[in-house]
Amino acid sequence: MNCSVMTDSSSPALLERALSGDRVALARLLSVAERSAPEFAELHTALFPRVGQARRIGFTGPPGAGKSTLVEAYGVLRRARGDSIAVVAVDPSSPFTGGALLGDRIRMNRLALDPECFVRSMATRGSFGGLARGTDDLADVFDAAGFDRVLLETVGVGQSEVDVARATDTTVVILVPGAGDAVQALKAGLMEIADILVVNKADRPGAERVVAELEEVLSLRSEESHWQVPVIQTVATNGKNDNGLERLDQAIEQQAAAAQECGAFALRRASHLKDKIRRLVEDRLRSELFAGKGLAARIAEALEERNGRSPYEITAALLSEAGLTSAGHSPGSKNESPA
Amino acid sequence: MNCSVMTDSSSPALLERALSGDRVALARLLSVAERSAPEFAELHTALFPRVGQARRIGFTGPPGAGKSTLVEAYGVLRRARGDSIAVVAVDPSSPFTGGALLGDRIRMNRLALDPECFVRSMATRGSFGGLARGTDDLADVFDAAGFDRVLLETVGVGQSEVDVARATDTTVVILVPGAGDAVQALKAGLMEIADILVVNKADRPGAERVVAELEEVLSLRSEESHWQVPVIQTVATNGKNDNGLERLDQAIEQQAAAAQECGAFALRRASHLKDKIRRLVEDRLRSELFAGKGLAARIAEALEERNGRSPYEITAALLSEAGLTSAGHSPGSKNESPA
Repeated sequence: MNCSVMTDSSSPALLERALSGDRVALARLLSVAERSAPEFAELHTALFPRVGQARRIGFTGPPGAGKSTLVEAYGVLRRARGDSIAVVAVDPSSPFTGGALLGDRIRMNRLALDPECFVRSMATRGSFGGLARGTDDLADVFDAAGFDRVLLETVGVGQSEVDVARATDTTVVILVPGAGDAVQALKAGLMEIADILVVNKADRPGAERVVAELEEVLSLRSEESHWQVPVIQTVATNGKNDNGLERLDQAIEQQAAAAQECGAFALRRASHLKDKIRRLVEDRLRSELFAGKGLAARIAEALEERNGRSPYEITAALLSEAGLTSAGHSPGSKNESPA
Repeated sequence: MNCSVMTDSSSPALLERALSGDRVALARLLSVAERSAPEFAELHTALFPRVGQARRIGFTGPPGAGKSTLVEAYGVLRRARGDSIAVVAVDPSSPFTGGALLGDRIRMNRLALDPECFVRSMATRGSFGGLARGTDDLADVFDAAGFDRVLLETVGVGQSEVDVARATDTTVVILVPGAGDAVQALKAGLMEIADILVVNKADRPGAERVVAELEEVLSLRSEESHWQVPVIQTVATNGKNDNGLERLDQAIEQQAAAAQECGAFALRRASHLKDKIRRLVEDRLRSELFAGKGLAARIAEALEERNGRSPYEITAALLSEAGLTSAGHSPGSKNESPA
């Protein structure tokens, strides 16, 4: 039994147990990562050498596209090929009820009950800040714990959510007939991040038209690339062989192989690492600037002190206070007055 | 004729002409604001005392909800009541073609050709950073130039876009039958920001069902409030009296009156000002930290120097370099090693 009682809660012991297959310890480590507790910085540094083996695959699309069902079906298919599977699902929570909106995760039973799988749901709590950092930390924990595939599922309706799905090795964008045509997907900014486009619920009327539209939009892409974005039709609720999941699996493998061959795979990971550090630095700057007071509190003070000053004036004053000159930023200005 | 040739391009003269009704100068000032040219900081400080008279109304919703048509119809209605109207419309641009996606703005002819109106379109160019700051600066210019109403229109599919619509006195969220039910709108994070919900294209099948669902979700709202969010059906393409625009106009007036009476109006504007300063400070920190090198460049260097270090370690080192101690952030750590 893995369900040891948590008597020893010291971090190194927690890490050791979590990474060696203790599911309760793993759940606890994930909670530390999700809360962004100060102790996680140290834990992350300790587990970082083990990060990098898992393949990360992002799934995103508009609400109602059937993402959870597709992610579960893909997870089950990879399980049958011997992979262990971790899922990080971002659940928008309701500002009205305070809880998660739907019991989507309950529907992932085929994965959640498998001892070689772990499904973790993150509520966004109406706040979008730090979402990308948080999910990335969870994915790092799963990666270090030895899961072969980490699947990240988000609803593609916020830049933060889209960033989560994009910060992966392969990004799958899921659309459905009737929820908007290819131009609407373009407007939502989803097509530019897709490595693979899925038209799910392809047994519905209009599926062929959406596929044709998507292919037409893709044909407009001017850049030369190592990878042609395919459009794959799926019916994820259908357990039969012709539900498109096999084609999706093949496409994900082919995309990764093509990216590895031309070096894009490593470049993409290096770029994600840079993004992660940038987010960490910005988070810390926001909370620590101005003698630990934090940016928000200092702005409130400055507005009191400088009633009626313009936002640009207050910004210049705050930057000067933080030791950052604003020289060279107002070339035409003769009387910059941050005081 | 207002079409004076731009021989004198000095900033104070440009500002004076733009704010006194010269449309060519106004267009140029808007371009300076949109480019975020260094000179705009000074111009903004000069025009800031005149900011605050205009009412700002945000319109957002999923792609295909008919936002442009509704914004135009509302603008035409307010024109008939004597208001001058400015529109800031955020156009997602295609990463494939490099240009704006649709000629939506062309359809705003009834406003664009009116001398008491000004329609300005902003392309997002695939980049979402700075969008809220940019649109806010444009709205400030229109406000200072004396427009009575500034309408901000964005597609509600990104946190930045949603932020634009929310940074107003009144936020109108536009949905349509068939594009997803109330739960999907909740998932998209749109219902929490709505002062007024519009079900546009209400002549389509399913409108009544969406209205009922939205009202049910609204009834779950626990907090006491000075304002009950109404659900209004419109058919913006219909020029007749029963198209719902009158009811929308009334609701916008009632919401503003209620907010003014209880003080929420002023609090909301104060909160938007804080947000604007926070964005300005963060933008400048990002670009000026590390001796003007910028955060992104310094991170790239740090990754070269510290190959294999964890992102949290590199973050601690960069913050220490920027003069920010990370003391107190790793209480359990005995050997913090930023070097």
